[in-house]
Amino acid sequence: MQEKGIDLLITSDPANMNYLTGYDGWSFYVPQAVVLPIGEDMPTWIGRGQDEPGARFTTWLNDDHIHAYTDDYVQSVDKHPMDFVVDLLAAKGWNKGPVGIEMDGFYVTPRGYEAVKNRFPDGAIRDSAKLVNWVRAVKSEREIALMREASTIVEKTMQMAIDGIAPGVRQCDVVAGIVGMQIAGTAEFGGDYTAIVPLLPTGAKMVAPHLTWSDEKFASGAATMIEIAGCRHRYHSPMARTIYLGKPPKTFVDMAEAFAEALDSAIAAARVGATCEDVEAAWRAAIAKAGIAQKWRIGYSVGVNYPPDWGEGTMSLRPGDTTVLQPNMMFHLIPSIVVGEYRIEISECVRVTETGGEALASFPRRLFVKD
Amino acid sequence: MQEKGIDLLITSDPANMNYLTGYDGWSFYVPQAVVLPIGEDMPTWIGRGQDEPGARFTTWLNDDHIHAYTDDYVQSVDKHPMDFVVDLLAAKGWNKGPVGIEMDGFYVTPRGYEAVKNRFPDGAIRDSAKLVNWVRAVKSEREIALMREASTIVEKTMQMAIDGIAPGVRQCDVVAGIVGMQIAGTAEFGGDYTAIVPLLPTGAKMVAPHLTWSDEKFASGAATMIEIAGCRHRYHSPMARTIYLGKPPKTFVDMAEAFAEALDSAIAAARVGATCEDVEAAWRAAIAKAGIAQKWRIGYSVGVNYPPDWGEGTMSLRPGDTTVLQPNMMFHLIPSIVVGEYRIEISECVRVTETGGEALASFPRRLFVKD
Repeated sequence: MQEKGIDLLITSDPANMNYLTGYDGWSFYVPQAVVLPIGEDMPTWIGRGQDEPGARFTTWLNDDHIHAYTDDYVQSVDKHPMDFVVDLLAAKGWNKGPVGIEMDGFYVTPRGYEAVKNRFPDGAIRDSAKLVNWVRAVKSEREIALMREASTIVEKTMQMAIDGIAPGVRQCDVVAGIVGMQIAGTAEFGGDYTAIVPLLPTGAKMVAPHLTWSDEKFASGAATMIEIAGCRHRYHSPMARTIYLGKPPKTFVDMAEAFAEALDSAIAAARVGATCEDVEAAWRAAIAKAGIAQKWRIGYSVGVNYPPDWGEGTMSLRPGDTTVLQPNMMFHLIPSIVVGEYRIEISECVRVTETGGEALASFPRRLFVKD
Repeated sequence: MQEKGIDLLITSDPANMNYLTGYDGWSFYVPQAVVLPIGEDMPTWIGRGQDEPGARFTTWLNDDHIHAYTDDYVQSVDKHPMDFVVDLLAAKGWNKGPVGIEMDGFYVTPRGYEAVKNRFPDGAIRDSAKLVNWVRAVKSEREIALMREASTIVEKTMQMAIDGIAPGVRQCDVVAGIVGMQIAGTAEFGGDYTAIVPLLPTGAKMVAPHLTWSDEKFASGAATMIEIAGCRHRYHSPMARTIYLGKPPKTFVDMAEAFAEALDSAIAAARVGATCEDVEAAWRAAIAKAGIAQKWRIGYSVGVNYPPDWGEGTMSLRPGDTTVLQPNMMFHLIPSIVVGEYRIEISECVRVTETGGEALASFPRRLFVKD
């Protein structure tokens, strides 16, 4: 905050609220915030009255650092929860500025932004520029342990997906199994909801990677991409694989082999001191050997999160991102290639180490075929 | 739009985008929009390049009404997808104003809002004031049919939850079953992901209604609230019930009976011509007979939606909301009472008819007890 010249930080990103305070609840459909003045030891949670008990249960904050607005603020045309927030800031003398807010954060609406602007001096608003997201980039040992547990869950879940996808089986029935496994987790620890639902585009719809499932049946002679995650205490370990039902065209098999090798190269390149764009360059050079020339984002930072995204919105593995990799950064390394009617996607959740990337999960890194 | 003095509407609410165009995909973690100029027959979809095929698959729009930005706009500090949107608006001459935007919409960030403001004349920005959400309030026959299918799913799912909750069973295992059933749906039609995950606060945590599950086990001598929905093609039918494991205190049983009767009264009050606050008043008068005096929001409009909320953000069943009920409006009627350490929540998804509310699902409206 000092470096950015911010005296007060306001965050409404549920992942940042969780990171700073431990708060965890499905309450982000109403405005809420964690505020952190630069001189204070403890952040302050501000949310809806109904959620105040949840803040007491899940955060490490003292009760006098938890404040709630009454229910008449909810979805009202007359008053807005962020009015309550700025009234509280003013009462505490925290409205002098400069104040950092999430200019590109979900869950900060223009109306809430205007409410903050109206109560601070002109020019006091700064873009906090994902400050907390950036702090989240390097994971602690405890966070790594949670992501390893999430990886165990995603291994089991991906196996269930591979086993379940077969000609004549409805997409929704496979996804029901996947999500059940994601949530049940293991006998030792349970799973959590993932920040993105399972994505399984199949057949002609493989070119549309963010379509969700339907109740249509999987068909033979078609490929399916599976993009899922395991989640443990909101920490994600994502994974993607591609499966082909029937006998795949030779081109497809060859492409998949080249893909897996190129992915190995990219994972190896994710070492301390390299840059984000170095990782993409390693991938691009490797896949070019198969005659494929593509240049786009092949991954992003990942960790604690809530819907709509498990990515942290900071680093992108793409040309132009010169961020230097540090130990225990975590990336979802997810290239994809489209050649003609074919598409392949295989991904790993990778930890940055001195000697290269470590894939957190252990699952065959190849095309699956059910002939 | 004419009534509101808006010449151009920009919406980034995934439910509104779906309602206007049919678009359906998990792509709302990047900025996207549907824009509708007042003189045009067809809205225009604008989103990420990766999602353009999804727009072609799921919308009724002609290809020349689908525009996509390149991937370098994604999570960049230099450029923002809403810059692309306003460039396109300018190119089409749609940047004169007045323009209606969702001032309190999720998925419109302050940065996106500023991008729009910068390209329109001073004073051209209007709050569209949830215009599309309001249009969504009265459901068509086709929408009602989808919500009835969602209701069939929620009946099956609630039964699974009631059957599953038992002393010694982990919360996550019950939720795994619930979510699996929500998504598998029925043999005739599949289910969809719900805009809110299952909420099952139990025991002492019942006072915190928006906590999600853990891998702790359900215990005897405690109550659990179950709030879930069925979802079909993004249309929701929510339902809540309360279950007690063990022998409940007589107070709790008495309160639950009074609650169910009062809920009946509220449902009966949800008739054409009544106001939103009339429904709450009917509930409040009925529950007062049990000596309970509480005055807060007991429901809201519901229908097509995406995370983080299945409510439409328009009407609230609470004092002061004088909106007049029209045929085929749909409400989630969800009162709750807290008396001391106890909490009860029983809810119904209700259709407004001339003679009162019709509960869409058929499921015993009472406290469940497993002694």
